[in-house]
Amino acid sequence: MAELLHPFTLVLFGANGDLSLRKLIPSLFNLHQDGRLHDDGCIVAVTRSDENREAYLEQAKAALCQFEKTPDEKIWRAFSARISHIQMDAGKGAGYSKLAKKIAHLPANRIFYCAVHSRMYPQISEQLSAHDLISEQSRIVLEKPIGTDFASAMHIDQRVAEFFTEEQIFRIDHYLGKETVQNLLALRFANSIFEHQWNQRYIDHIQITISETVGVEKRAGFYEGTGAMRDMLQNHLLQLLCMTAMEPPASLDPQAVRDEKVKVIKALRPITGEDISHNVVRGQYEAGLSNNERVPRYRDETGVAHDSTTETFVALKAEINNWRWAGVPFYLRTGKRLAERSCEIVVEFKEVPHTIFEMQHKKTMANKLVFRLQPDEGVKIQLCEKRVGSQMQVRPMVLSLNPVSQQKKRVPDAYERLLADAINNNATLFLRQDELHAAWHWIDPILQYWATTDQRPEPYNAGTWGPAAATMLLARDGRLWAENS
Amino acid sequence: MAELLHPFTLVLFGANGDLSLRKLIPSLFNLHQDGRLHDDGCIVAVTRSDENREAYLEQAKAALCQFEKTPDEKIWRAFSARISHIQMDAGKGAGYSKLAKKIAHLPANRIFYCAVHSRMYPQISEQLSAHDLISEQSRIVLEKPIGTDFASAMHIDQRVAEFFTEEQIFRIDHYLGKETVQNLLALRFANSIFEHQWNQRYIDHIQITISETVGVEKRAGFYEGTGAMRDMLQNHLLQLLCMTAMEPPASLDPQAVRDEKVKVIKALRPITGEDISHNVVRGQYEAGLSNNERVPRYRDETGVAHDSTTETFVALKAEINNWRWAGVPFYLRTGKRLAERSCEIVVEFKEVPHTIFEMQHKKTMANKLVFRLQPDEGVKIQLCEKRVGSQMQVRPMVLSLNPVSQQKKRVPDAYERLLADAINNNATLFLRQDELHAAWHWIDPILQYWATTDQRPEPYNAGTWGPAAATMLLARDGRLWAENS
Repeated sequence: MAELLHPFTLVLFGANGDLSLRKLIPSLFNLHQDGRLHDDGCIVAVTRSDENREAYLEQAKAALCQFEKTPDEKIWRAFSARISHIQMDAGKGAGYSKLAKKIAHLPANRIFYCAVHSRMYPQISEQLSAHDLISEQSRIVLEKPIGTDFASAMHIDQRVAEFFTEEQIFRIDHYLGKETVQNLLALRFANSIFEHQWNQRYIDHIQITISETVGVEKRAGFYEGTGAMRDMLQNHLLQLLCMTAMEPPASLDPQAVRDEKVKVIKALRPITGEDISHNVVRGQYEAGLSNNERVPRYRDETGVAHDSTTETFVALKAEINNWRWAGVPFYLRTGKRLAERSCEIVVEFKEVPHTIFEMQHKKTMANKLVFRLQPDEGVKIQLCEKRVGSQMQVRPMVLSLNPVSQQKKRVPDAYERLLADAINNNATLFLRQDELHAAWHWIDPILQYWATTDQRPEPYNAGTWGPAAATMLLARDGRLWAENS
Repeated sequence: MAELLHPFTLVLFGANGDLSLRKLIPSLFNLHQDGRLHDDGCIVAVTRSDENREAYLEQAKAALCQFEKTPDEKIWRAFSARISHIQMDAGKGAGYSKLAKKIAHLPANRIFYCAVHSRMYPQISEQLSAHDLISEQSRIVLEKPIGTDFASAMHIDQRVAEFFTEEQIFRIDHYLGKETVQNLLALRFANSIFEHQWNQRYIDHIQITISETVGVEKRAGFYEGTGAMRDMLQNHLLQLLCMTAMEPPASLDPQAVRDEKVKVIKALRPITGEDISHNVVRGQYEAGLSNNERVPRYRDETGVAHDSTTETFVALKAEINNWRWAGVPFYLRTGKRLAERSCEIVVEFKEVPHTIFEMQHKKTMANKLVFRLQPDEGVKIQLCEKRVGSQMQVRPMVLSLNPVSQQKKRVPDAYERLLADAINNNATLFLRQDELHAAWHWIDPILQYWATTDQRPEPYNAGTWGPAAATMLLARDGRLWAENS
């Protein structure tokens, strides 16, 4: 049974931005369609551009049709009746009186969702406070990336913290809402055969990849000042690393889970000085073929500087200094214009110490557990079995745990889960302040090093798996990225 | 590619017996059809009954049609051309001159296959020797059960050993030829994630079941003096236990594998004295329903004594006194007229030490690895995964490794493999003398105890899973047989 959420007022800043239209409104619609939104569930769409409610709904519906599905007309009408609209500049005080009036009689369980640039978070918080819109029952949801380095993240965080307590601040990382990431917890902590071997004695290494085939698209303005490290690695990849590497929490209580996650980030071996050029690869795409179409190089994209040193690819070798993981490399990589769109966590176990069978491709025979988050969600186990027949030959085979096909259920989008959790005040899957700080703290030396050299990122052809140096990063250790093995 | 076997002469004693017609001839036919039999591969069918070659081939073909498949006429003709026939009493010297003449010019790689009662083995060996039919290139294949207790097995063995060296004696246990038993070796020794946990730290217990739905059928004459312990447990179940429990051999070399197997049997904790009534359950079926038909009780079957104390069911709790298995019970059971026909090895891992998820049926959530040998062959893994949806609920799920569907190959019958191994002089899957002796040695005190009490076996209704005491055997330890859990 789908659980009915609490009554709520969701104020959505940036309601006509890419994220809102592509993800948040469709997710809210799905929650509505599944009967999970309380009758007293109100959405206040805040846009800066000058448009009326009807125009906004038109736009929202068009996006729903494009990115999710064409809704049933009757259900859309019932859903859109939840949505009111305010045109205002979230950075200025003027609109907040309007907002105050609008939400005065709506449910007190207020979620202020900031789907805007993180430099706006302090102003929004301040204005909400100035107009007395923050009560104990209010929460603020902050989208990533928060800041552009440790200092700016600290600054934003401290300013928001003047108006909201830590318990009220929901830092979202939508990768944590993915069904397969939840399933990673279930597989790790509900199966003795996995968790007993989840350590350096049995695991050879772990790979985490988030690859995109798209280029910078229309986001150059944002991306030029951000890059793959800040946009993807500092948040999504490190969060996936935490979920993979953390100790078993004593419970699923938000504090217990986040205590374990932050311990992982704090135990990451710092990458500084010479280590940076050795253990971190940054790349920038050249022209190439993507999905059989010729695509331009990054520096020729609209809005990108011709001498840009922004990285569109980053790969690094992380190590965790604790008993569980000492000596087990975590290879992380992410990039745009890569060969495939995918997100995978590959856990490769050590090979058997001694083999008594005939094997043809020894290197590929180690047991692997693969958590796939994109484009489809699922889990695979690679085992070896006997080849049927008279010889005693062994061959690799793959077992799939596909939640969709197995359970015949729609896999909810990550944002559905996280919006529901925000509405019900469950912070388990949101980042705590210390996690955010620790992540920036670990990344900062690398960003600083890059900023002080005039080295340009290593070029790679669009449609490939990144620069050769990324292959070398593993080859040096006698390993290969999963797609090559 | 199917491997071509060596030229051979296979002399089959008991060629019109149940085993020969049902299994051996069909297996040889399949090997022929698969192109594995050398052109110089000759089968000499020895029968005691008075019939000519044509009549024998007729009978063999009828059995092939009934138990395996209707053969292609052309292939059958080519196959049957390999078969010559001799009518003789294997217990008497008279026929052996005929046999000698018949095989004089056939390939010297001679396999004497004894598909007859084990009391005949010494006479056959002696006569073969007296007629100078045994060379270095000869082997004798002995069917189980060899003897009826330790003393008789020793006697038979010693007599046969006067004429054949240990290397020439192939003691067959067809369960070892099953594809899934081979796959058990592959899964254990080619997958680090299994073998690393294959011990008392991670495994809760192991169950091995061979259950039949049939009653004693027309074999009362044999079965009355044998019973489930000698017919099934002493050989098949103990062999499966060995394959499951043995240390990793250094190679697949016959001696290396059998060295490890015999170590397991020798490490079995003796069950003697009071332990017997505590740890061993014997049963005898009463009337009941089998496949929806009323069936009589064992004592009313044709050829069975009205006060028979022969057990048609046995269950016992075995323990292995070594570092790997101390404290891990191996529950074995076998019987006739049980609820289902099946053969399964169930490896149940320990439960997670602490659970953080909502679970509905806690007792059934432990990870299990199930090797199924009958009626179909395959392997299953029971894991827990997240139930798709907004709750953090965990549910059990089963992954199947089905060699047939995965590899789209016919799974060869166990006898095909073992006949091929016998032809090619590969003894890996045959029992060595010390294994046989150790198995009888372990069983003997139980047989003796039963012989000295006048207790009748516990009754159970046909079509059930055996006497209540068998359920109690596990329930006492807080466990259940797999079909109940």
